[in-house]
Amino acid sequence: MKLHHIIKAQQFNRSKLANLFTMAHEMKEVVQKGGSDILSQKVMATVFYEPSTRTRLSFESAMQKLGGEVISTENAREFSSAAKGETLEDTIRVIESYSDVIILRHYESGAAEKAAKVARVPIINAGDGSGQHPTQALLDLYTIKEELGKIDGISIAMVGDLANGRTVRSLSYLLAKYKNIKIYFVAPKVTRIKSDIKDYLKRHHTFFTEESNLKKIAPIVDIIYQTRIQKERFGKRVKDYKEACGKYIIDKSILKLMKKDAIIMHPLPRVDDIKKEVDSDPRAAYFRQAQNGLYIRMALLKLILIG
Amino acid sequence: MKLHHIIKAQQFNRSKLANLFTMAHEMKEVVQKGGSDILSQKVMATVFYEPSTRTRLSFESAMQKLGGEVISTENAREFSSAAKGETLEDTIRVIESYSDVIILRHYESGAAEKAAKVARVPIINAGDGSGQHPTQALLDLYTIKEELGKIDGISIAMVGDLANGRTVRSLSYLLAKYKNIKIYFVAPKVTRIKSDIKDYLKRHHTFFTEESNLKKIAPIVDIIYQTRIQKERFGKRVKDYKEACGKYIIDKSILKLMKKDAIIMHPLPRVDDIKKEVDSDPRAAYFRQAQNGLYIRMALLKLILIG
Amino acid sequence: MKLHHIIKAQQFNRSKLANLFTMAHEMKEVVQKGGSDILSQKVMATVFYEPSTRTRLSFESAMQKLGGEVISTENAREFSSAAKGETLEDTIRVIESYSDVIILRHYESGAAEKAAKVARVPIINAGDGSGQHPTQALLDLYTIKEELGKIDGISIAMVGDLANGRTVRSLSYLLAKYKNIKIYFVAPKVTRIKSDIKDYLKRHHTFFTEESNLKKIAPIVDIIYQTRIQKERFGKRVKDYKEACGKYIIDKSILKLMKKDAIIMHPLPRVDDIKKEVDSDPRAAYFRQAQNGLYIRMALLKLILIG
Repeated sequence: MKLHHIIKAQQFNRSKLANLFTMAHEMKEVVQKGGSDILSQKVMATVFYEPSTRTRLSFESAMQKLGGEVISTENAREFSSAAKGETLEDTIRVIESYSDVIILRHYESGAAEKAAKVARVPIINAGDGSGQHPTQALLDLYTIKEELGKIDGISIAMVGDLANGRTVRSLSYLLAKYKNIKIYFVAPKVTRIKSDIKDYLKRHHTFFTEESNLKKIAPIVDIIYQTRIQKERFGKRVKDYKEACGKYIIDKSILKLMKKDAIIMHPLPRVDDIKKEVDSDPRAAYFRQAQNGLYIRMALLKLILIG
Repeated sequence: MKLHHIIKAQQFNRSKLANLFTMAHEMKEVVQKGGSDILSQKVMATVFYEPSTRTRLSFESAMQKLGGEVISTENAREFSSAAKGETLEDTIRVIESYSDVIILRHYESGAAEKAAKVARVPIINAGDGSGQHPTQALLDLYTIKEELGKIDGISIAMVGDLANGRTVRSLSYLLAKYKNIKIYFVAPKVTRIKSDIKDYLKRHHTFFTEESNLKKIAPIVDIIYQTRIQKERFGKRVKDYKEACGKYIIDKSILKLMKKDAIIMHPLPRVDDIKKEVDSDPRAAYFRQAQNGLYIRMALLKLILIG
Repeated sequence: MKLHHIIKAQQFNRSKLANLFTMAHEMKEVVQKGGSDILSQKVMATVFYEPSTRTRLSFESAMQKLGGEVISTENAREFSSAAKGETLEDTIRVIESYSDVIILRHYESGAAEKAAKVARVPIINAGDGSGQHPTQALLDLYTIKEELGKIDGISIAMVGDLANGRTVRSLSYLLAKYKNIKIYFVAPKVTRIKSDIKDYLKRHHTFFTEESNLKKIAPIVDIIYQTRIQKERFGKRVKDYKEACGKYIIDKSILKLMKKDAIIMHPLPRVDDIKKEVDSDPRAAYFRQAQNGLYIRMALLKLILIG
């Protein structure tokens, strides 16, 4: 399986996802053995129009663990500064002259698709505005597969900011490709899941329901996928923000309700949404989930640059 | 041929230029074969006192395609901050303790020469204020050689901001080393070529003339070298800026006038100075020109660090 | 000898220091032979919560000279931005998923220790607030060993800002481990050495005295360790600052008084505290001292990642 541009999570079908996850699993072994040099002298450019240090470092480490090299900027807005006014397309055409793959982070939804239209080298979307962040969705799904051994048949509670969170939306798209999935959306009133996702799930015959009582749901799900309520989304509505924040917190009392082999996921960073006391429980999967980002990105780079 | 400091374009004579271009051509093949490791464990420091992401990434990719490593800062002004007040010379003496070659970008004309005076390791000037940017001039000349198969005897229209553009000035210096060159300077009144360049060309018996009608010149030249009118150079003279901007634009109508084997060059970024409709024409050489920057910089690094 | 976290200079005893210095000396030879690849595919993360380009580049070069790779941010404050509010511990747990060693620079004293408590991968403290900067102290001591051939029995004048300077404090701690050391503290009134260091030296039976006349001390010491008076430490006390600045300057007149085989050290950057005229004297050891930072950091990385 040879991949080219990675623009959105939905571009993967079940068979491609299965291949990708097998490769990611192999990459875990590659890392444990100390890395590989299959991408030596290949150059990856990380072109970030806004900083996202976590995502950038994860991609860069993935490239290096396979022996590849990195050129990098978190200051790509400079290209399109008022005075200079270069188009994204031109920037991509210049950067691709000295790189073999481009990781693009942009503040505008649709930027990755725009870039892919003119690029000769593969583009990986590392987040474009309120649009997609496909490698996050892929690592989430891979974590489910690795932790629970399967994806078909799982039940998941998605908790927190379901209105604004890119990750919850993308994961929903992907889960709709699997069988007998049960999704429980648990959110404060002001951050409830949007109707486009609900319509999508209906069209794909994926079971979902909205719940307000996490304690009722915790005992029956395989996964609690917690997300952070993002202050910046609320603007001046401080009261709304505070109310939303305190409503669903994962602590020991929730842990006690959960199944023994269930897991807790979180795209990170977390603030108070998961209490520290949860970290030492083996069901706390969120740091393993972050680590899976490395393996997924290694697998993608391998499948893109070599096949 | 072993090189050391690269401070200004004029330091190269015809024979050195010929050697450099042969090496750059070899580097193109090295890239196509997937890179080399001749510079492995060599460390290049990019010390940028002002950001120039494009130039920096091109140098860094060049180093990596030859197996070398990069340490990098676009924040070098920190060294000379008010509180600390370290001299450029001291900074260079420290950085050279942990690098094998230094790429210096500075906001002050003459900085590269100053650095070279104290440095034990080679310095490459990546632009110093209104001074020189020799690798840009070298890649421009190399592009002419690669695209047209020769340099002697070519005719070139230099268009746009000839007063402030570093590239046009440096390219003029280099072209004066070749035979039967014809230069047509085509510029708005406010950005005409300065008398020092004209005097230089006279002394070197290089033909040039100033023209105002691009349509008259387009049919007879081998190269149109377009440049961007830089807003920031005009300050409050908005009217002058707008007039200058609109005056010479490369579009399909200009393409129609040009010779079949002529080329269009541009140091990039372009804004509206070359219309998008021109991009798909095979004579549009500006993205190939950007790519040549990689080969020239690889060739320089090889000639500096190995010979 | 296998090392793990490097948090403070005092964690090394004499025998560990001797081992480290032997390894650093070997590293000098490795560099002269063009580097090594013993750390290939190992990834070092430089996580800097405040910029310190000099320190960062030195660490990165050290890693690369041993064949290793680097992921890097000087913008780590982003992780803990008001809106996101991630703890240092969480950040470390994420970054360690994609790195083999973490170099941490932080604005808060004690941050390195905090990080080490949760980290599975080794942490190297690259300066935490007014706390420690152990690799600087180690390279200082290594420089004494390399330049003078021994540490026991040396006499040293520490000059300048002894109240605020991290380096002078850490070096004092380390010197107290050696025999027959003589320390002369020479400082303006406002930046005299603090009583905690004096108490420490007393407890360890290390000779020290405070002097005000550098000309009296210069002829009898093996080392003058000059430091910069840091303007930012004085706030609005401009008069105090100016007085402190001018008081002890190393120039030719001081050189004339010094022993033939004595040396001058400085953690750099220097401003006017050592005159340029001193640079060409073989006793000016400060640039060699900076270079020793590379060897010490290579040695630490080797001892941490391989043993």
